[in-house]
Amino acid sequence: MSIIRMIDVEDLEDIAIGGAVLGTGGGGDPYVGKLMAQQAIRKYGPVTLMDVDGLDDDALVVPVCMMGAPTVMTEKLPQGDELMNAFTALEKVMGRKIDAVLCGEAGGVNSTTPFVVAAASGLPLIDGDGMGRAFPELQMVTFTLAGVSATPMVLCDDKGNSIVLETVSNSWTERLARAATVEMGGSALLAFYPMSGKVAKQAVVRGTLSLCAKCGKTLRAARTANADPVAALADLLGAQNLFHGRISDIERRTVGGFARGRATITGVEAHRGETMTLDFQNEFLIAEKDGQVLATTPDLIALVEADSGDPVTADSLKYGQRLMTLAWPCNPLWATPEGIALVGPRYFKYERDYAPLPR
Amino acid sequence: MSIIRMIDVEDLEDIAIGGAVLGTGGGGDPYVGKLMAQQAIRKYGPVTLMDVDGLDDDALVVPVCMMGAPTVMTEKLPQGDELMNAFTALEKVMGRKIDAVLCGEAGGVNSTTPFVVAAASGLPLIDGDGMGRAFPELQMVTFTLAGVSATPMVLCDDKGNSIVLETVSNSWTERLARAATVEMGGSALLAFYPMSGKVAKQAVVRGTLSLCAKCGKTLRAARTANADPVAALADLLGAQNLFHGRISDIERRTVGGFARGRATITGVEAHRGETMTLDFQNEFLIAEKDGQVLATTPDLIALVEADSGDPVTADSLKYGQRLMTLAWPCNPLWATPEGIALVGPRYFKYERDYAPLPR
Repeated sequence: MSIIRMIDVEDLEDIAIGGAVLGTGGGGDPYVGKLMAQQAIRKYGPVTLMDVDGLDDDALVVPVCMMGAPTVMTEKLPQGDELMNAFTALEKVMGRKIDAVLCGEAGGVNSTTPFVVAAASGLPLIDGDGMGRAFPELQMVTFTLAGVSATPMVLCDDKGNSIVLETVSNSWTERLARAATVEMGGSALLAFYPMSGKVAKQAVVRGTLSLCAKCGKTLRAARTANADPVAALADLLGAQNLFHGRISDIERRTVGGFARGRATITGVEAHRGETMTLDFQNEFLIAEKDGQVLATTPDLIALVEADSGDPVTADSLKYGQRLMTLAWPCNPLWATPEGIALVGPRYFKYERDYAPLPR
Repeated sequence: MSIIRMIDVEDLEDIAIGGAVLGTGGGGDPYVGKLMAQQAIRKYGPVTLMDVDGLDDDALVVPVCMMGAPTVMTEKLPQGDELMNAFTALEKVMGRKIDAVLCGEAGGVNSTTPFVVAAASGLPLIDGDGMGRAFPELQMVTFTLAGVSATPMVLCDDKGNSIVLETVSNSWTERLARAATVEMGGSALLAFYPMSGKVAKQAVVRGTLSLCAKCGKTLRAARTANADPVAALADLLGAQNLFHGRISDIERRTVGGFARGRATITGVEAHRGETMTLDFQNEFLIAEKDGQVLATTPDLIALVEADSGDPVTADSLKYGQRLMTLAWPCNPLWATPEGIALVGPRYFKYERDYAPLPR
C-alpha cells in the first residue's frame, strides 16, 4: 500500500508547525489543529500516511477541511465528530465506501484536520494536498486545474446542520459554501472533491504532509543545536530571506468570511531604513519593499519569528513583533496560465502581475 | 382518490388572482405564476386536484415553492424544469416515489408553482396549503406546528446549482436557505417538508386552492354582472372592508432577501380625513388607522383595487392608487399560542400583540 510511515501524537507537533509555515499566514492557528488531531489519535490510534501512487486507480479518495475566517475557526474549535459527519455523509451521497483521506490545504488547522478523519475512520491518509500551501477560496486547488468537481460536497456545522451541494462550477461551490459558512457562524467542516485514485495521482501536490513534518523537525533540531532556525528552515524550503523587521502597523477587517488586511514592517539590521508591506486575504499574497514587488501569490510568503523560526499567522500579528520574511517558489502546477488565472495577484484584485521567484 | 376536479389552463386565471388575494400583498405577481402554470398544463395536460383525505396514510406528499423577495421572483421567471429539478432531487434523497404534490403557500406565484410540478410529473395536487395565505419565512407553515421537519429539502437555482439541506430546526432551514437564495441571485426553487399522507391530513390548511379559484371566479362574476366586486369578494371571504383610500407614501427596502416597508394610505369618501398605515415584510402584517391597530398578522390583510377588486401586491403599490383594505380571520391553526409565536406581530419585531378579528 506504499505506506510512508505511521503518524503518532508527537509527530503532530511538527506537522502542525510545518502546516503553519506552508499556510503562509492563513490556515489557522497550528496549536488548535494539533490539539484536534492529537485527541483523535489518542482515541483511535496512529494514522497511516501513504503515497498517492499506492492507491488503486478505482479507489475513492476524499479531502476534508475546515472552512472560514481563521480568526473564527480558532475560536470555534470543532469536535472531531463534526468532521466525521461531513465525511460519512459524503460517503452516503457517493453510495460507496471511501478508501483514503486527503488533505485539502496545508495550513495550521487544515494540515491536521485530515488526521482527525483518518484516525476516526481507520483509513489511510495520502501524503499530499491540493495546494502545497494555503489559499482562501475553495476552488483554489490543483484539483480544479485537473478538472475535478468540488461537488458533491457536504458541509456541516457545530449545531447539527448539514448541506449537500451540487454546483455547476467550483467557483459556484465557493460562493454557496461561503454564504452557508457565514450563516453557520463563520466556520464549517467540509468533505468535497471526491476523486478516483487515478485522478488523485495527477491532481495532488505530492509529499506535502512529509514536508510539513520536516519543517517542524528542522526548527526543533536547529534550536536544540543552537543553530539558526530561520536559516535551517530557509535551506529546507529553498527560500529566500526577503526582509527582517518589526511590525509597525496592521490594518485588518473581516469581509465576507475572510480576514483581509495589510501589515507594514519596518526594517532592522540589514534592512534598516527600508519598509515592507504584506497584503493578505487569510494568506500573505503580495510582499512589496518601498513600492517594489518582492514576491506575489502563488509563490509562498511566510513570516517567522526572527529568533525561533516559528511561523506567524496573519491573524496573530502584533505591533512590534520582530520577524523574518521567507519566500519560495510555488508548486509548478500553479505557475501555469490556468494556475495564475485561479490564484494569481489579479484574481485578488491587485494591479500586479505574477512575479515568479527564481527556481 | 377523492378527485375534486381537473384544473385546466383557464382555471389558472382564477387561481392566480385568488392566490394574490390570499397572498395578502406578498407571494409575487399572479401574472407570472399564471404564465408558468399555464405553460406546463399546455405541455403536459390538466392537473388533478384532490382532497387530502383521499391520500393513503403511507403516501409521500411533497410541497414545492419558490423562495425569494417577490420583486426578484417576478424578474427571474423560472422555467418549470427548475421546479421539477428540486422535486425529482428530493425524490432521490427520500429514496422512494412521491405520491402527491402540495402547495406550500397561497400567493400569486406559489399558489401556481405546484401546478407546474403536478402537470409535469402527472401526480395529483392536494387542495390545501401550509398557510391559508402567504408568509415571508419558510418555517411559517402549519406543517411546523404539526411537528413536520422542513428537511430533507432541495433548493435549486436557474444556473443548475442545487443544495440538499438537513437542519436541526425549521428556523435553521430558513436561515441557511435564505443565505443560499440571496447568493443564488435572490430567488430559488424548493421541494421541502416531505410528509406522509397521515401527517398531511392533520398539517394541511384545507381547501386553499379551491378557495383561490372561487376568489377569482367571484371577482369575474361580479364584474360581468356590474355588481360590486369588492363587496362580493368580502362576502366570500367573510372579510371586513377596513379602509378606502389612496396611497400617499411608500417606503421600501430589500433587506436580507425580503421586501420590507410601510405604505401610507390617505382616506377618501367614508374615510376622508383619516390615515391608515400598512407595514409589510413581503406580506401586509399590521394595519393601523391614526395610531389604532385595525388588524395584525396572522389575520389576513389584503389590498384590492377599489373598482375592480383585483388584488395588489406590496411590490406593485404606486402613489395615488385608490384601494380598499380587506381583513379577515386567519385559519384557526394560527390563532394558538404556538401559531402566534411563529407568525404573530412580535416575531416580526412589532411592539404589538395579536389583535384577533371577530370570527
